[in-house]
Amino acid sequence: MKDLKILKIGGSIITKKDRDNPSPDLEQMEKVAEEIKEGISNVSGLILVHGAGSYGHPIVKRTGINKGITNKEDRINFAETQRLQNELNSIFTEVLIGKGVPAFPVQPSASAIMEGKLERMDVEVINGLLDEGLVPVLYGVPAYDRERGCSILSGDEIMPYLARELDAGTVLHGTNVDGIYTSDPNENPDAELIEKVESMEEVRDRVGGSKDTDVTGGMLNKVEEIVDMGISGRIFNASRPGNIIKALCGEEVGTYIESVD
Amino acid sequence: MKDLKILKIGGSIITKKDRDNPSPDLEQMEKVAEEIKEGISNVSGLILVHGAGSYGHPIVKRTGINKGITNKEDRINFAETQRLQNELNSIFTEVLIGKGVPAFPVQPSASAIMEGKLERMDVEVINGLLDEGLVPVLYGVPAYDRERGCSILSGDEIMPYLARELDAGTVLHGTNVDGIYTSDPNENPDAELIEKVESMEEVRDRVGGSKDTDVTGGMLNKVEEIVDMGISGRIFNASRPGNIIKALCGEEVGTYIESVD
Repeated sequence: MKDLKILKIGGSIITKKDRDNPSPDLEQMEKVAEEIKEGISNVSGLILVHGAGSYGHPIVKRTGINKGITNKEDRINFAETQRLQNELNSIFTEVLIGKGVPAFPVQPSASAIMEGKLERMDVEVINGLLDEGLVPVLYGVPAYDRERGCSILSGDEIMPYLARELDAGTVLHGTNVDGIYTSDPNENPDAELIEKVESMEEVRDRVGGSKDTDVTGGMLNKVEEIVDMGISGRIFNASRPGNIIKALCGEEVGTYIESVD
Repeated sequence: MKDLKILKIGGSIITKKDRDNPSPDLEQMEKVAEEIKEGISNVSGLILVHGAGSYGHPIVKRTGINKGITNKEDRINFAETQRLQNELNSIFTEVLIGKGVPAFPVQPSASAIMEGKLERMDVEVINGLLDEGLVPVLYGVPAYDRERGCSILSGDEIMPYLARELDAGTVLHGTNVDGIYTSDPNENPDAELIEKVESMEEVRDRVGGSKDTDVTGGMLNKVEEIVDMGISGRIFNASRPGNIIKALCGEEVGTYIESVD
């Protein structure tokens, strides 16, 4: 489906990310859901992927479950980490459905097989749901791993997999930064937002040859993924009012990556 | 896995089934979870499947979503019906995990393909979770249907599918009735509980040749499924204290179905 768009909503948008305990950001969820509802008429197919924020990072950090399963406690932590992601997804899809978005939860770890990275995941249901006009909603999860019992399947890893398997036309990264800058805007007042790039080479040139990908909040990985897929994408700030609508409508917002084959 | 047991917990056990709105029965959930925790050391592999009760029947009846998707409203109802099942599963697995059961949620409709009935569902993850000592928890859901958009995949349909695909040794139906009776115990004081049967013929003989399968609460279908699989099974009352432990330990409770090849 060449017109299929995949929209990632970062965990920093829909949760209070800095909290030590799972804390949804209901106000932001409402805003995000409203903008998706408003923008959805402009897309012929939409998949949502969301991150975990405070539903994921604190428990993973506390339990070390990302390293795999070695004992009884790990099994409990693996199960509870998964359960928490379903809880967050249930809260977010409730808000989406409340706004009139037919947001159908799809638990990635119900079919995903990991081997360090994502080996395979069932997409036939997702395809079918799209055919029926639904909006599948996937999310970062801890998943079964053939080598070490479990590992983390992040939303950022789900997105390119789906784009490839379902032949998506565009991926949209809704983050909490405005896009890719020529240098760290927090430290350099002359930092400029890069509005459009066509290759990794171009990005590296423009960020001043800096080796530190963190100057742009680790966003270069996302650009590289998009370029590797040979499709177009956008990295934008989903917390600023109107930006999700703009992204869904193909209007200028954030950094646009136009891959050139 | 010949020692694999699949335990179904009916929606009438873990929810207040007669309510018009989704109402979990937290007290029963606690009891069920405690008995599973106590019985689990006696099994080498366990899958749980639970029903929907008041999280499923009222919304399905109100919206007619079981008939498929024909309009925009159906899509919203399909999504919301799924979301509600995830919510129930999240509440139940929270109680299970709290008791120390490594209960890992597995959303069946994330990979199930229906064509009126269940066509296929991914079981590789379930197998992997069992290998890692987890307890996969599946549940009745509305699922994508190739023919009419969506249909209901009940816990009762998931159970024999898993038993076949994963080569289970025993299925245990935890219901709100004591087992199969020779006639309706509510109407006939002479009704006797059938403790063991070996074939459908024997069951039909003993229930007095009655054509009305409802005399035993529609339980004959469950017996037929077990007999068809050629494995052993048990239909018992999961709401009576101690029964789940007995069932998991292979002790006498309810009606035992010993299929004879």
